[in-house]
Amino acid sequence: MTMTSATLKDRSLLGLKDLSATEITSILDRAAYWEGQSEKVTPVLKDKFVANMFFENSTRTRFSFEMAQKRLGAEVLNFSSAVSSVEKGESIYDTVRTLESMGIDAGVIRLKPAGVLEQLASKVSVPLVNAGDGNNEHPTQALLDMFTMKQQFGELKGLKVSIIGDIKHSRVARSNLWALQKLGAEVKFTAPESMQAPELAAYAPYVSMEEALCADVVMMLRVQLERHAVGVLKSADEYRLQYGMTEARAAKLAPHVMIMHPAPVNRNVEIDDAVVEHPQSRIFKQMENGVPIRMAVMERAMK
Amino acid sequence: MTMTSATLKDRSLLGLKDLSATEITSILDRAAYWEGQSEKVTPVLKDKFVANMFFENSTRTRFSFEMAQKRLGAEVLNFSSAVSSVEKGESIYDTVRTLESMGIDAGVIRLKPAGVLEQLASKVSVPLVNAGDGNNEHPTQALLDMFTMKQQFGELKGLKVSIIGDIKHSRVARSNLWALQKLGAEVKFTAPESMQAPELAAYAPYVSMEEALCADVVMMLRVQLERHAVGVLKSADEYRLQYGMTEARAAKLAPHVMIMHPAPVNRNVEIDDAVVEHPQSRIFKQMENGVPIRMAVMERAMK
Amino acid sequence: MTMTSATLKDRSLLGLKDLSATEITSILDRAAYWEGQSEKVTPVLKDKFVANMFFENSTRTRFSFEMAQKRLGAEVLNFSSAVSSVEKGESIYDTVRTLESMGIDAGVIRLKPAGVLEQLASKVSVPLVNAGDGNNEHPTQALLDMFTMKQQFGELKGLKVSIIGDIKHSRVARSNLWALQKLGAEVKFTAPESMQAPELAAYAPYVSMEEALCADVVMMLRVQLERHAVGVLKSADEYRLQYGMTEARAAKLAPHVMIMHPAPVNRNVEIDDAVVEHPQSRIFKQMENGVPIRMAVMERAMK
Repeated sequence: MTMTSATLKDRSLLGLKDLSATEITSILDRAAYWEGQSEKVTPVLKDKFVANMFFENSTRTRFSFEMAQKRLGAEVLNFSSAVSSVEKGESIYDTVRTLESMGIDAGVIRLKPAGVLEQLASKVSVPLVNAGDGNNEHPTQALLDMFTMKQQFGELKGLKVSIIGDIKHSRVARSNLWALQKLGAEVKFTAPESMQAPELAAYAPYVSMEEALCADVVMMLRVQLERHAVGVLKSADEYRLQYGMTEARAAKLAPHVMIMHPAPVNRNVEIDDAVVEHPQSRIFKQMENGVPIRMAVMERAMK
Repeated sequence: MTMTSATLKDRSLLGLKDLSATEITSILDRAAYWEGQSEKVTPVLKDKFVANMFFENSTRTRFSFEMAQKRLGAEVLNFSSAVSSVEKGESIYDTVRTLESMGIDAGVIRLKPAGVLEQLASKVSVPLVNAGDGNNEHPTQALLDMFTMKQQFGELKGLKVSIIGDIKHSRVARSNLWALQKLGAEVKFTAPESMQAPELAAYAPYVSMEEALCADVVMMLRVQLERHAVGVLKSADEYRLQYGMTEARAAKLAPHVMIMHPAPVNRNVEIDDAVVEHPQSRIFKQMENGVPIRMAVMERAMK
Repeated sequence: MTMTSATLKDRSLLGLKDLSATEITSILDRAAYWEGQSEKVTPVLKDKFVANMFFENSTRTRFSFEMAQKRLGAEVLNFSSAVSSVEKGESIYDTVRTLESMGIDAGVIRLKPAGVLEQLASKVSVPLVNAGDGNNEHPTQALLDMFTMKQQFGELKGLKVSIIGDIKHSRVARSNLWALQKLGAEVKFTAPESMQAPELAAYAPYVSMEEALCADVVMMLRVQLERHAVGVLKSADEYRLQYGMTEARAAKLAPHVMIMHPAPVNRNVEIDDAVVEHPQSRIFKQMENGVPIRMAVMERAMK
């Protein structure tokens, strides 16, 4: 492996906080190129091997990456910690180094502990793509969100984006914040006090639900129900009434407002069942757009 | 996706109850074609993507589908609920719609709740193939069973088929019943009272074990041992004596009688260990035939 | 399947105990060939199907086999018991026979119970490759170990190899013992009494830790921490002090001595954290070498 650390850094995608506006735009443009291709498979990554290493389970994200990788002709090896020897106490580092030793050309990685990824990337010599690390970043999700906004609004500059929900634990909120601001969008947060991230207040204001709904994009976040053992249902109901995209709230949105959600959705908690496929919802469009975004990101990592 | 709902219906395979005899015969004929091919891989589905979505685990069925799909050159993406975000409360519908959004050309699906599949199929725009839904249908299993019978007996018309065991919970029994009758075979059931499905009595008679053994085909069903917490071993023994294909019973069968089982087998419960590979058993032949049947079904869904 | 049992035996790799020195050397030579190829994929196994059947989980080994298989252009089907119907009581035999019926050209298998594999191989008609069976053998691990030794020392004849740790439960120790001796290396064991295998004393002497370190190769074995419910930490500490490759011990090794470990490592138990990537450690090199070894083994099985 003779890749220089500069090249490696250009090929990896650990987060959007340290990516330039030019780099972000270039990924979005390349995704637009891939989205426009009528051919299902374009083997620009033929004979390249990529490992999807999911130390935290995710159907959706792993599947989206795998689809993108295979559409580029790459060879894909999957593992999730649920069926790996990580259970036997093997550290994340050892696993990644192991797969690197076996000759992968890039790795996609999702992991729970925040802060581990950067350290990891500095120690291995293949490009790594972050598929979600703790509450730190989820760059491909934010990229696909921005791609979806751009599709509808043409450009991101001046766009008003409200991010509503569990900001504190959300890597999606963070990646969107960093990248949207770089491209000139205006980000506001709305969250109950227990779900606010005080350290982000310096970057974006916390506003009321009323104010949040007066935006161009309303991005609902997933409530981590699994983190609240007791009184979940009660608080879920309360949450919905105060911070959910209910049918009533959706009906009052201006017609140009886009409803987004990174999924998976807790129906009738952060978003009403009937709103998931509302004409102004782009939830499944977001998933669709995940594929060309990840094609652009994987091509950048491996070509 | 511009597929009309008529086309979609023609490509999906949700069950055999609503399939015409002509359609069934056409799948069986196409399977015979695939079985006769000496080439291992014929890439008629090159660049097509199929998702195997198993919300209920199954080594055998998933593997058989994957083998069939790859022999046709398709790109295969697998997931099972055990390693998916379904655990996080994501509904089956959301998962299927998600994978659809990502651009799959067809989905193979196995799920526990009966009745969900049809509703699902009406809401998505890619062909779905049923790999077993609750106790409703398991169409590819019945097709491979019929293919195996046809191989030996030439035709199904007039064939006497006894289905023995847990009829009540068996999707295999139902799919075989519907399809065998359409093609002119005569189906009889044998089951202890607790395992009878009264609603099927209008279609096929329940007969004694003695009468059941006077047939051309004796199809043993799997006892769902996992459903009986208490007294399993005792009842397993009793079950074997009353309804099992014991060595003694196998020895008394007429020489042309075919022993079948959809597998996996509970050895020494519904079938004796020594009978699994009895000269009249077609259990492993059934598994072999699953591949060409599923090639025919996947080709129909995706070509 | 018309393969004769002689051919089958020549293509299977159940263990190294019954393999001739010539056969072993021929695999090592072929691995050297594959290691020297600059092409990532050489499709000599195009349109061949292999099943990786892991009845015991292992990220590393499964991944290494899959990488090797795909670099040879084979079609790969994976399953691990954690997501299979083995849970439903399906026997290993039935699963293997099932996959065989579906038309695989070879199977790679890892399983817990020792002694099952040979019986299995005698009943199926496709080549089987042992990826670790109980405490019996792990032939591809020993082959890659020998390949790594040969890389550094040129030849194995006369090489002094110490194997240190849980000899009793180690299939790695056994496979290395049998094969190294055939090629003229001198093997010694070091283990606390509770981890000695008395039946192996006839083949290699048990020596003190001091003597073990005066060798050309020092192979540390994994301590199966999961087998000791109580007092693990205490005994892990004691173990490290008496039998671990501590920093202090590593510092005193002669400069030509190679430190090996089959991984995954228990850091700070059998080997100190700082020694894992010590200049004399070949741990990640071993993993790298696993791929060409498994390419040679899979090619031998399937071509």
